[in-house]
Amino acid sequence: MPAASKTSADKIRSQPKSWAEVAPLLVDVAMGRKHADLVVRNGRLVSVYSGEIIAGIDIAIAAGRFAYVGHDAAHCIGPSTKVVDAEGRYLVPGLCDAHMHVESGMVTVTEFTRAVIPHGTTSMFIDPHEIANVLGLEGVRLMHDEASAMPINVKVQMPSCVPSAPGLENAGACIGAAEVAEAMTWPNIIGLGEVMNFPGVAGNDATMRGVIDATARAGKTVGGHYASPELGRAFHGYVAGGPEDDHEGTRVEDAIARVRQGMRAMLRLGSAWYDVASQIKAVTEQGLDPRNFILCTDDSHSGTLVHEGHMDRVVRHAIAQGLKPVTAIQMATLNTAQHFRLEREIGSITPGRLADFLIVSDLPALTIDRVYGRGVLLAEKGRLLADIPAYNYPKSAKNTVKLGRRISAKDFDIAAPRPGRSATARVIGVIENQAPTRALEAELPVSGGIVQMDRRNDVCQIALIERHRGTGAVTNGFVSGFGYTLDCALASTVAHDSHHMIVVGTNKDDMAKAANRLGAVGGGVVLFSKGRELALVEMPIAGLMSDERAEKVAAKADKLVNAMRAMGCTLNNAYMQHSLLALVVIPELRISDLGIIDVRTFEKVDLFI
Amino acid sequence: MPAASKTSADKIRSQPKSWAEVAPLLVDVAMGRKHADLVVRNGRLVSVYSGEIIAGIDIAIAAGRFAYVGHDAAHCIGPSTKVVDAEGRYLVPGLCDAHMHVESGMVTVTEFTRAVIPHGTTSMFIDPHEIANVLGLEGVRLMHDEASAMPINVKVQMPSCVPSAPGLENAGACIGAAEVAEAMTWPNIIGLGEVMNFPGVAGNDATMRGVIDATARAGKTVGGHYASPELGRAFHGYVAGGPEDDHEGTRVEDAIARVRQGMRAMLRLGSAWYDVASQIKAVTEQGLDPRNFILCTDDSHSGTLVHEGHMDRVVRHAIAQGLKPVTAIQMATLNTAQHFRLEREIGSITPGRLADFLIVSDLPALTIDRVYGRGVLLAEKGRLLADIPAYNYPKSAKNTVKLGRRISAKDFDIAAPRPGRSATARVIGVIENQAPTRALEAELPVSGGIVQMDRRNDVCQIALIERHRGTGAVTNGFVSGFGYTLDCALASTVAHDSHHMIVVGTNKDDMAKAANRLGAVGGGVVLFSKGRELALVEMPIAGLMSDERAEKVAAKADKLVNAMRAMGCTLNNAYMQHSLLALVVIPELRISDLGIIDVRTFEKVDLFI
Repeated sequence: MPAASKTSADKIRSQPKSWAEVAPLLVDVAMGRKHADLVVRNGRLVSVYSGEIIAGIDIAIAAGRFAYVGHDAAHCIGPSTKVVDAEGRYLVPGLCDAHMHVESGMVTVTEFTRAVIPHGTTSMFIDPHEIANVLGLEGVRLMHDEASAMPINVKVQMPSCVPSAPGLENAGACIGAAEVAEAMTWPNIIGLGEVMNFPGVAGNDATMRGVIDATARAGKTVGGHYASPELGRAFHGYVAGGPEDDHEGTRVEDAIARVRQGMRAMLRLGSAWYDVASQIKAVTEQGLDPRNFILCTDDSHSGTLVHEGHMDRVVRHAIAQGLKPVTAIQMATLNTAQHFRLEREIGSITPGRLADFLIVSDLPALTIDRVYGRGVLLAEKGRLLADIPAYNYPKSAKNTVKLGRRISAKDFDIAAPRPGRSATARVIGVIENQAPTRALEAELPVSGGIVQMDRRNDVCQIALIERHRGTGAVTNGFVSGFGYTLDCALASTVAHDSHHMIVVGTNKDDMAKAANRLGAVGGGVVLFSKGRELALVEMPIAGLMSDERAEKVAAKADKLVNAMRAMGCTLNNAYMQHSLLALVVIPELRISDLGIIDVRTFEKVDLFI
Repeated sequence: MPAASKTSADKIRSQPKSWAEVAPLLVDVAMGRKHADLVVRNGRLVSVYSGEIIAGIDIAIAAGRFAYVGHDAAHCIGPSTKVVDAEGRYLVPGLCDAHMHVESGMVTVTEFTRAVIPHGTTSMFIDPHEIANVLGLEGVRLMHDEASAMPINVKVQMPSCVPSAPGLENAGACIGAAEVAEAMTWPNIIGLGEVMNFPGVAGNDATMRGVIDATARAGKTVGGHYASPELGRAFHGYVAGGPEDDHEGTRVEDAIARVRQGMRAMLRLGSAWYDVASQIKAVTEQGLDPRNFILCTDDSHSGTLVHEGHMDRVVRHAIAQGLKPVTAIQMATLNTAQHFRLEREIGSITPGRLADFLIVSDLPALTIDRVYGRGVLLAEKGRLLADIPAYNYPKSAKNTVKLGRRISAKDFDIAAPRPGRSATARVIGVIENQAPTRALEAELPVSGGIVQMDRRNDVCQIALIERHRGTGAVTNGFVSGFGYTLDCALASTVAHDSHHMIVVGTNKDDMAKAANRLGAVGGGVVLFSKGRELALVEMPIAGLMSDERAEKVAAKADKLVNAMRAMGCTLNNAYMQHSLLALVVIPELRISDLGIIDVRTFEKVDLFI
């Protein structure tokens, strides 16, 4: 990947100098022999180390790091020092999102960063699992390099499970131990992304062992993902295999089980995840030591970022559940930093660490007046001040929707399995507000040898179109639950986790038009009705991310949702449900480039019974 | 150091296999597909991660690591599994001593290990600062290799300040950034030993920066030692320089200041240190988060180990101060492990970690019935069961008392500075139970041009004899406070930190005899009176450590203390006071191979005024 490698050299230069490199200066400032760049006076320090709130604190900053934290920084002030009076407001460490996917925001790392800084996020641990499924190691490197150029700390977790379901799907790339070992040498890789193949870990699958061992050898953190309510042997086998955290818990017993096993319980509040309130009771009601609990978002849509917030929203929510503010803040700062072996870099307002901090006027409400990253004022009163130039992705990253041919309505014709007036088909049943689907069956009419949709009973067609290797191969199937009542088709190149193209439609002409439109714009989501394009969110980067501003993407996504509703769709998160229909690791029925998959048995099944 | 290097290869083989290496087995045991080596049933788990005590817990162990921790390990038991019924007793993680000097016990690492295992210590972080002053890097490597051969975890902190006071003394070796960088590549080096030159850190001294930076580059822990009550600029400058912990605090405000600055407060209870009770009030009375508090011993004499205990004594004491038992245990297990980046290896009873644990029948009293290390029963009811072979030190380590000549009584003659019947001399004043000395003055009689002792006023002679380079150079001075009333001399090759030979006597013949005797036996401590040897503790290894059993050394040390008392000595810890008289970093007056040192001004001063 010559292009990526060339970019990286420049970008890494933007990384802050190490504590060791600037220690002589920090010592000189603390001793009053040199002057700080910035001194903030008279704050109320939220001390995440001691668990206290301490009034009357000054902080002095030099070379982007804290040089002095104490009761009087007068001796650190010189003629060129900028002095800010905190006027008794709270000084809070910059917030950390311990596990998240930038791709869920449909925007680039740069745009995501721009969106979250005003919300107090100064560190993110991103798992570029989606781009890895499209572009493999090169895609990870691209996001790694973009991440390295940010004015906040964006650390990258190397994706561990690409493809997510080997044997049940072909993704755009494969990642194994060799790729993980290579990534562990990159400067901004912090560990291994969520190890989702939990049966594989408990079964000593060679690839899972390889990627975990490569990470352990590098001394980095192995992210977990145990998405099962079963806390018996399978859980214990998974823990013994090495994952160090888990954000898939939903019940209080899940959090307790993980912490007792020496893992960190990561509690998430994403756009569609609400797992904090239930699990935090382990601390608020059952009195567990809070130090091994960590907050994260996992997935945030651009609309959530723009309208509701990011880690500020999560911390606020955790406080509202009854946590002491200091404890909730520890869960988004020091606890996270310790987990990723970054305690000497981030997560507290103490000497030597990067000067990432917030000035907060109301602590329980977490009203953030100012956000500083590496000693620089990045946002004020919710407004971004930092100038973060757009990151240019190479052509190779923008040319990933390879259909290889023009898709036509006939591609969606499904031949009847045998002569007759009807056929019994398996139908993927979408369940409102849940990721699992139901394996339904439906008797469908046959006309001219072609099986027809049953629109009155909300059975329409789904197609998965291969888009990584240009075969243009189409897998057809049926789906129920979206509620479309009009002629329409929705196509998306976001199709977890292999990210082929999923088209769902009540009308084959619209399905073809939607598919071809995404092929032309390099991916995204589009809705057609009766030959007319009603809404489009272009995502040219790997077919997963827009290169536009988050506000613009959120507006386009809003337009899409409204247009889907106008077509009769009644689901809460219809677009998300759409994009999960190829996720062949969550039961019951899914579609992949290999056919219809029954995820209860992890087997390919016939479309017809 | 060919000898040391050759030894190490063998010893490292005795290190336990990594979690990654044995993960497939651990997973198989947790899943019930393979059988554990050991299962302990029906324990009350002290869960340091969750802060709970959980009844009815089984643990299964394979390859020396925990494979399963849960409510029923029946599926892990096979025909060859040893099953132990804990009968409801507590399962406690093996205790960690976060900072200590083996040399203080006057015994080898092996003997120290033998002595502490029955007291529940399964991990020690040792700083071989004393041997480094005698033998330099090779001495550190010898103890490192011995440490690596132990059946418990003995991790080595690379000494940082050798000599302790450059310019005021010559030690047997010098350690700088190059030596530290070299040591950081050894398998069992865990970080940098206490950085005692705190003015050097706050002054950006090049050597201090070099050793700290070399450690930071290796990603290891920088140990601190800020031995001053001043919590102003000098303290803040020290913290900004990078040390990560400190065990020199004595007051509650010391502990609070350290934790607020993002350091760990290490609270010590050694043979002569009593710093837990005062500082733990930061937690018990002021409510600070206990996670950044750690327990250690720093210095334990062999007598303390034999008669009182080790980390069990410290934890028991901490509980007696009002800490919840789980919290006190966290301070000697998980907190320590996290500090040294070893959380995935030691410090808890959770899957994958080394199976170091205790069976405890009474928690607040910490009554330890059994001690397991790496899944092996090492001690029961205070009795060591492990067979730990003696470690053979090479000849080079046993031939370190190089006087170069025979010492005679005349070597201790101190010529009067000018004609007259008396002279006013500086006298080192020993203070009962304190490390600092007083800078006294005394008018001493002169006879035949030689200044005489004033035994009636408890002024006797002290001599420091160079013993590293065989110059046999003698520095003479006066000392007061031991209370010797009879003719005698005590000589010791333990003379912090440069470890030349210190002789204190009321009689020059005895002084010469004592010095020559130590030259003959390779070092140790000896007491002579009127030409007769009253007591001897041989310490042939670097002149610092015995190669005998701890019980035997303790008995010999007891005999020495009794003999000193018989000579009229009234001090509590007379031998320790003796061995600190060359410690030219603690005020006020000391002796070194360069002369009499005033540590208030860090200057050499004349013996006479």
